[in-house]
Amino acid sequence: MKKSIGAKTILYPTPVLVVGTYDKDGRPNVMTVAWGGICCSAPPCVTISVREATYTFGNLMENKAFTISLPHESYVREADYIGIASGKNENKFEVTGLTPVKSDMVNAPYVGEFPVVLECEVRHTHKIGLHTQFIGEIMDIKCDESVLGEKGRPHVEKVKPFIWAPDGTGYYALGEFLGKAFSIGKDYRQK
Amino acid sequence: MKKSIGAKTILYPTPVLVVGTYDKDGRPNVMTVAWGGICCSAPPCVTISVREATYTFGNLMENKAFTISLPHESYVREADYIGIASGKNENKFEVTGLTPVKSDMVNAPYVGEFPVVLECEVRHTHKIGLHTQFIGEIMDIKCDESVLGEKGRPHVEKVKPFIWAPDGTGYYALGEFLGKAFSIGKDYRQK
Repeated sequence: MKKSIGAKTILYPTPVLVVGTYDKDGRPNVMTVAWGGICCSAPPCVTISVREATYTFGNLMENKAFTISLPHESYVREADYIGIASGKNENKFEVTGLTPVKSDMVNAPYVGEFPVVLECEVRHTHKIGLHTQFIGEIMDIKCDESVLGEKGRPHVEKVKPFIWAPDGTGYYALGEFLGKAFSIGKDYRQK
Repeated sequence: MKKSIGAKTILYPTPVLVVGTYDKDGRPNVMTVAWGGICCSAPPCVTISVREATYTFGNLMENKAFTISLPHESYVREADYIGIASGKNENKFEVTGLTPVKSDMVNAPYVGEFPVVLECEVRHTHKIGLHTQFIGEIMDIKCDESVLGEKGRPHVEKVKPFIWAPDGTGYYALGEFLGKAFSIGKDYRQK
């Protein structure tokens, strides 16, 4: 028997996306976003949801471009701080010592220390409620060579991303391998 | 120095969302969706992206309602199969032996065996490209009592969700606790 817990924003897993933008004066900013993910395969698109009150919102409207830097688990403190502080009051790159790198594909900065970066141009904007959704076309992905696996793709066990559990607990590392996708469930097809 | 790997749909972590719908004859169907996540805090909304060619797409257009059942890691085989097969050709509930339960909030079925279920009404539909995005308002969340923690919320370590890594590897379990959110990064604010 299941118990109703009301209408809440709980889902697992939730990503930790560090969104990079420039402000109107060209200063780099980052913000940690948990409401987002891939939303289309062709063209490859990713969505992030941002409140109007944030510094990032104005930057996105101004430049129509952003990056998503995916932090290695060793950067959990930095990612948390980047989600707490506002670029209106604090220069989050300076405070953390992280390095803003200008994308060569879009007008936005990324975090040099993070192993995987998506470079995106805003294609659609939808105001849903408290949050507005920005849909970005992924123009390129940049990776540290140290996290590349087979076929020129990153390998998740080298990237070591972490997740956020939006239930009051916190951040968790990647766990053990459970099975190959589009494969481990094939047995059911032979019934 | 980062290496360009081209415009791909790689992001970590990606969720494993088992989307439940009824078809026009009232038959329950499920489909595993990785392109989705929470997209607004108020009203609480979740987005899923679905190709027009899928059986679920027609069901969503017909009923404007869906559920998301979050599988425990012991159901990785079932979740994978549900992502491979089409409800046009196979009754995925019958094949897996999973139990369709009619939601008491929305016109859609959920998976009885999965510990956490979101019940959603479609509020917006956006065709992006190959995928169309359905934004659902979360009307309620239902949980097995066995996965509840403090404050009447589910606890991620009891739910034991798993993630999909869209880089050719596969599914991974939840790993170790890394830190409390909105807390572990606070030290940076005292600088």
